[in-house]
Amino acid sequence: MAKDRISVGILGLGTVGSGVVKVLRQNREGIAHKVGLPVEVAKVVVRDLNKPRSVDLLPGVLTTNPAEVLEDPAIDVVVEVMGGIEPAKEYILRALHRGKHVVTANKDLLAIHGKELFDAAAEHGSDLFFEASVAGGIPIIAALKESLAGNRIRKVMGIVNGTTNFILSKMTALGAGFGEVLAEAQALGYAEADPTADVEGYDAARKIAILASIAFNTRVTLRDVYVEGIAKITARDITYARELGYVIKLLGIAREAGGVVEVRVHPAFIPREHPLAAVNDAFNAIFITGDAVGDTMFYGRGAGELPTASAVVGDIIAVARDLTHNVSGRIACTCFEQKPIRPMGEVEASFYLRLAVKDKPGVLAGIASVFGNQDVSLATVLQKKTMGEDAEIVLITHRVQEQNLQDALCIIEGLSTVTEISNVIRVVEGEA
Amino acid sequence: MAKDRISVGILGLGTVGSGVVKVLRQNREGIAHKVGLPVEVAKVVVRDLNKPRSVDLLPGVLTTNPAEVLEDPAIDVVVEVMGGIEPAKEYILRALHRGKHVVTANKDLLAIHGKELFDAAAEHGSDLFFEASVAGGIPIIAALKESLAGNRIRKVMGIVNGTTNFILSKMTALGAGFGEVLAEAQALGYAEADPTADVEGYDAARKIAILASIAFNTRVTLRDVYVEGIAKITARDITYARELGYVIKLLGIAREAGGVVEVRVHPAFIPREHPLAAVNDAFNAIFITGDAVGDTMFYGRGAGELPTASAVVGDIIAVARDLTHNVSGRIACTCFEQKPIRPMGEVEASFYLRLAVKDKPGVLAGIASVFGNQDVSLATVLQKKTMGEDAEIVLITHRVQEQNLQDALCIIEGLSTVTEISNVIRVVEGEA
Repeated sequence: MAKDRISVGILGLGTVGSGVVKVLRQNREGIAHKVGLPVEVAKVVVRDLNKPRSVDLLPGVLTTNPAEVLEDPAIDVVVEVMGGIEPAKEYILRALHRGKHVVTANKDLLAIHGKELFDAAAEHGSDLFFEASVAGGIPIIAALKESLAGNRIRKVMGIVNGTTNFILSKMTALGAGFGEVLAEAQALGYAEADPTADVEGYDAARKIAILASIAFNTRVTLRDVYVEGIAKITARDITYARELGYVIKLLGIAREAGGVVEVRVHPAFIPREHPLAAVNDAFNAIFITGDAVGDTMFYGRGAGELPTASAVVGDIIAVARDLTHNVSGRIACTCFEQKPIRPMGEVEASFYLRLAVKDKPGVLAGIASVFGNQDVSLATVLQKKTMGEDAEIVLITHRVQEQNLQDALCIIEGLSTVTEISNVIRVVEGEA
Repeated sequence: MAKDRISVGILGLGTVGSGVVKVLRQNREGIAHKVGLPVEVAKVVVRDLNKPRSVDLLPGVLTTNPAEVLEDPAIDVVVEVMGGIEPAKEYILRALHRGKHVVTANKDLLAIHGKELFDAAAEHGSDLFFEASVAGGIPIIAALKESLAGNRIRKVMGIVNGTTNFILSKMTALGAGFGEVLAEAQALGYAEADPTADVEGYDAARKIAILASIAFNTRVTLRDVYVEGIAKITARDITYARELGYVIKLLGIAREAGGVVEVRVHPAFIPREHPLAAVNDAFNAIFITGDAVGDTMFYGRGAGELPTASAVVGDIIAVARDLTHNVSGRIACTCFEQKPIRPMGEVEASFYLRLAVKDKPGVLAGIASVFGNQDVSLATVLQKKTMGEDAEIVLITHRVQEQNLQDALCIIEGLSTVTEISNVIRVVEGEA
């Protein structure tokens, strides 16, 4: 029997869930045109029926019983916007086993249990779409899976966490310290009361794991990602970065070379002229290099009610179009290769180093000779006087294997002339 | 009978055609995985079999007879990369009438005869894809048609012509004049011997017509687009722009408000902090504002062999996936509304004006009173002394209807105190 509508069941009515209801409602007519059928929210599962909501729903739409979405044959598409691992995972699997199609914004779940979910979707020929899980409204998953599908992707480099980008942008604009700006970000709602997942880079790590999986057609999970956060970045580092022609950003970086994948999240110096350097405040951007397309960048809001809903609704429309054409599962998981992950010690980068040293003759020579012995060559050396007996030395190395740099730093840390290794930050140039 | 391959016939083996052959070849294995079948170039139609080519093809692949592509039932997908109106149009229609699917990079054709082509595709349930027709490798058509389909698009604003962006970037970086930089661009191959289509804005106009049609779901053709080129931009204007905090770019702008569409190409002052201001050299970028997603930007190479081929091959893969799932024509023309075009006189903008005036008391007061009488209010006034008897006045107006501004300029041109209206350039702020 031909369908007369696409019925959507939503799990969760927080920020994103409310946004989805609003967007489906405000653009109802255009969406119906594009799909060929009206798309309607039939059920929304919440924990508390009496909580005030920012959207009005018809009586009977809200329910506390997930079975009304997961088990009802009338529901075509299940939209999971509750977040967290459980019960989201169980619900998605139940929906897929019932032959439903799923749209999710859940990066935590995908970055850890992606394979299990995609296997279940494939088994049932169901669509499992997740554009909203990375970079909010920016259509980066579709770009990688479809428009850029003719490319061999070389590198994905992204500002994929709005909170840390807001903090670093403010630190850069105001010359302020990390703690001060974090407090402001919390007051403005840009950072959560417990900012660990953002500030320590774990949120970005989940997103780069998902992007790397798609870009390189191989399963990359959260535990494959090397992660460093931004809490150690100081106003001093930002000042040096500016003097040297750089901006500091928290980047998720994934590269493939010779069939081996490297994937990491860490603060990085990027040249002031790089398109990512101009991405400020809570905006996200993903810079992609493909063998045919060259350098591209996708910019937009990485979070928020309506931007994230834009991605979810785009996926709902894609599911609906597949349903009306009876081709669900058409674009499935693309992890058809198995590529090893490069150990972090073998990853190459340039490094910015800031050292507090005794202000005596020969100190720099001693440090330079340690680097020389470890095959670390220096591109830039700044020596700045500081207060008291200490001087500050800032160095930028040429590209070097991480392990060689770490070995050199171990030795330098032991030098009697070195008071402290104040910071070590990787430098990203235009290399593909 | 199940297919064992997707056979591609290419019309034209110039820059883009050669790129398509290269990309299909170099990423053959990954593409076959994504499609489920190998994608093979079966025939390439050229005018001259003996011309040296940058790609090697098997004997028998090259032909001068278009019927070998258009009439052979073994060809599934016809890739039109010859350019121009005829015979490209006739060939595409023949291919569609034969039930083939078509991928084209031909903006000239689409911006004028789009309706006829899409009608033919719809009649036969064929795919007609054209990602490469706008902004080379940047996947902007797919983003508008699919990922952002849940949005009501408010505005599309793009740097969609690499030649003029290269020229304006160089003028800005070097403080050089238009003619000088154009000559350099021609020497480097960034501008053609006859640069009219680029420099006068017609190339950008075709692209913004295509983007506007998709963004607003209504047919917009080349003749709907108001067009001004960059030949009148001088080093002086660029210097004033910088002083006032702006950069000059050639923009294609399309907006919809109240069911009415405005669409235009002209040089514009944009604020230095705007993401488009950082798009330099031959790069393109399209800034899109949707009611849900907010501001997004898509950046990349708008031309060139491999970037354009990236878009063409992405489309070939989409056609091939539709073929293997038997759902060709799934995403058809989306011009399901008919919206009027706002006459240029009713379009609102701010304006930068540069006037040469007599260096006498009361001159500015006289000009200001003309503007006042025409409801043009002034935001910024700079008065600069120049050589001889003349002074130069630079003004920026508040937002005003184009017609009021033009009326005021007519009167001002007639003032005995005004020697010349040296330039008039629109100013684009962050307005949606």
